[in-house]
Amino acid sequence: MEKKIPYRHYLTEEQLPRQWYNLRADMKELPDPLRNPATGEALKEEDLYPIFCKELAHQEMDNTTRYVDIPEGIMEIYKQYRPAPLVRAYNLEKALGTPAEIYYKFEGNNTSGSHKLNSAIPQAYYAKKQGLKALTTETGAGQWGSALSEACSYFDMPLTVYMVKVSYEQKPFRRTLMQTFNAEVIPSPSMTTQVGKKILADNPNCTGSLGTAISEAVEKAVTNEGSRYVLGSVLNQVLLHQSIIGLEAYKSMEILGVYPDVVIGCAGGGSNLGGLIAPFMRDKITGVHPNTEFIAVEPASCPSLTRGKYAYDFCDTGKICPLAKMYTLGCEYIPSASHAGGLRYHGMSPIISKLYHDGYMKAVAVEQTKVFEAAKMFAKYETILPAPESSHAIRVAIDEALKCKETGEKKTILFGLTGTGFFDMFAYDKFIKGEMSDYIPTDEELEASFAKLPQIEEK
Amino acid sequence: MEKKIPYRHYLTEEQLPRQWYNLRADMKELPDPLRNPATGEALKEEDLYPIFCKELAHQEMDNTTRYVDIPEGIMEIYKQYRPAPLVRAYNLEKALGTPAEIYYKFEGNNTSGSHKLNSAIPQAYYAKKQGLKALTTETGAGQWGSALSEACSYFDMPLTVYMVKVSYEQKPFRRTLMQTFNAEVIPSPSMTTQVGKKILADNPNCTGSLGTAISEAVEKAVTNEGSRYVLGSVLNQVLLHQSIIGLEAYKSMEILGVYPDVVIGCAGGGSNLGGLIAPFMRDKITGVHPNTEFIAVEPASCPSLTRGKYAYDFCDTGKICPLAKMYTLGCEYIPSASHAGGLRYHGMSPIISKLYHDGYMKAVAVEQTKVFEAAKMFAKYETILPAPESSHAIRVAIDEALKCKETGEKKTILFGLTGTGFFDMFAYDKFIKGEMSDYIPTDEELEASFAKLPQIEEK
Repeated sequence: MEKKIPYRHYLTEEQLPRQWYNLRADMKELPDPLRNPATGEALKEEDLYPIFCKELAHQEMDNTTRYVDIPEGIMEIYKQYRPAPLVRAYNLEKALGTPAEIYYKFEGNNTSGSHKLNSAIPQAYYAKKQGLKALTTETGAGQWGSALSEACSYFDMPLTVYMVKVSYEQKPFRRTLMQTFNAEVIPSPSMTTQVGKKILADNPNCTGSLGTAISEAVEKAVTNEGSRYVLGSVLNQVLLHQSIIGLEAYKSMEILGVYPDVVIGCAGGGSNLGGLIAPFMRDKITGVHPNTEFIAVEPASCPSLTRGKYAYDFCDTGKICPLAKMYTLGCEYIPSASHAGGLRYHGMSPIISKLYHDGYMKAVAVEQTKVFEAAKMFAKYETILPAPESSHAIRVAIDEALKCKETGEKKTILFGLTGTGFFDMFAYDKFIKGEMSDYIPTDEELEASFAKLPQIEEK
Repeated sequence: MEKKIPYRHYLTEEQLPRQWYNLRADMKELPDPLRNPATGEALKEEDLYPIFCKELAHQEMDNTTRYVDIPEGIMEIYKQYRPAPLVRAYNLEKALGTPAEIYYKFEGNNTSGSHKLNSAIPQAYYAKKQGLKALTTETGAGQWGSALSEACSYFDMPLTVYMVKVSYEQKPFRRTLMQTFNAEVIPSPSMTTQVGKKILADNPNCTGSLGTAISEAVEKAVTNEGSRYVLGSVLNQVLLHQSIIGLEAYKSMEILGVYPDVVIGCAGGGSNLGGLIAPFMRDKITGVHPNTEFIAVEPASCPSLTRGKYAYDFCDTGKICPLAKMYTLGCEYIPSASHAGGLRYHGMSPIISKLYHDGYMKAVAVEQTKVFEAAKMFAKYETILPAPESSHAIRVAIDEALKCKETGEKKTILFGLTGTGFFDMFAYDKFIKGEMSDYIPTDEELEASFAKLPQIEEK
């Protein structure tokens, strides 16, 4: 008898996960540690206390605790907007004429409009608990800044957001959204930090990058008593919080009696991807489901996995952060301003980088006009206007489904639909007017950037 | 033992209503019929065929069928984004310190961003089924236009949207959203219709109104072979479709073992309010729950229930539509452009008007700065940025909860949260900068408008 799969599956409140899952505890080999750029020494938890609040520094370094309890004060807000639905894309499948079964975990059903809220809430919560006075962060497309503004507003925690200048200008309403939640928003690079001043002196027209905005936010935090910095992606702690996405999807699929053959996620810094795949990757690593395929999708304009180096590099353009071993385009690489979405980060989460390097997952790079074609089709059939970032995953999910149409395979495809495109209408407008172009960096550009990678002696 | 109420309650797909509920079948006295402005004659179903597709004309006039089956072709898309959650506002209650229990039915969890999609889908579906070639409509704040664009895109039905000019200018991204779904969007008043030309000749700087945009859309439909007009509010058919809101809320509350003492909804044309209250009003009319209170909330700048006349009036400013008996400010009344949200319609659904006139419900008018204060507080505690329209209901729900705090009453409050404010950041920006003002029409202005009401002899 055919299984009866609903269009949308919601867990009940009782079924919500009460613990995050730490994939590092099950990895055969761990990601390489963060290092001090001056000494080459691996960092210890205490070394991070000036930047991160203590509990987050602990989560960053804890490679062994498999399941981490979610405090009740965080559950109270998670329950406010979770569970996120697991959606069966019946209408898209029909339009494609594919035998594949397509599922997506939709994280856009909350006001921040994306999965970013899942990590913003714990980061604001732990800062409040430690009695900190203020937080700083950066935001690219604006999803992280919106999410953190929401979370900080809830906990009455003052927040300064450095917003990548190109997004600040293309998305004035993102700024207003953050201000509505009481955040201070500053376009980056700015004159409010030494790092920003230096970059503007070299290039007054600099449109900014996540790497630069991170430098400014970190500088602002470490030079202000009682302030700490928080980051929306890349870090181990963030992937830990985002495991809620995968855990919910996993439980929903368990209840529905299905399991994915392919898991697809867009990858900028890796937070959504790392969270979505966590329990499925556990099953692959531990041999429960050894054949599941994992595909990271990145923009062709910022191809850190598919064309980057696996090397120690700074997490920020200003070179004031620790070094991380990751796939990177070089911390001075500034992605083309013509790229419409987020995913404009030069590096990639060390966890994702390690899994990719060890052959547990694949990566593909896609051009943005192809991404928006997929987005428009998805919107038509699934009645959701997706964020450009999320649409990278849609593009590859559609491509995989079309391959199944050719081969006749009835694969089960799961992808992460991380958010909505309500604040990306500027980009949609360019696309529907036929004014959107693709940008792919040349090998020479990348080589020039790689030449500036730090040479460190690992200790 | 205390009941365990989750933060969010979702019906399962099996529990979704499969029929709309027609409140007219249970009303003790029916709303007065639509009339021909030239003859004063009550209209028959066939008289509406040139304007509406047949099935919708039938639904408009059918006062007796209590439950109407929802066709499978409509359920397929309803299931794509429904159920909408019934949310218990625990965090808001705590912040207010009220003994009241506050629930809201949240209709913003879909790309149109509002409840409007509930009626857009059947209207596009029936038009397609009848083999029509194109649809026309109007939109004010843009929610209806977005929803209908989505629905028409799904059914490959060409659509022209006349958008009230003040919104067109304040919300360029709404236009892009509709265009992404392939709709043609024209600011109203426009030079594309006789009605528009006449209004612009009289007042070239006219910022538009729903009434004018309706006239243009109707003219465009009736002068083009195979075209029909569709409307997002006011009409009986729309309230029928929107009953899905109330039916879901009713079933969720039944499952949770609670029943509202007060039901609150914002009221522009009355579609959300009429849909939300339907099954609860049935219980009041039939004596099952005779003491439930119902409160319509309207903007002080456009106070059709609280300061209007109950009279026959045109549904549109251009006076080409039938006459409806309703609370009205006069069809030539143009609300202040300074009002930020939708709800800028001169009249009110005949069903809501009749219920209000017969004493089944109350109405209050609120000023927009007070509304945005409530919106900002709600966003902080409930992590949802509400639409300005919806925030009218939030304002009064908070006021009711604060009354309970004074009296110690533990009332159960239910309100309709019709949508999200993602496209209203222009208004939020004005509010957070302290640049928003209130506008209340003078008695003289209203009297001048009432003087132009049509004098008809009812037959």
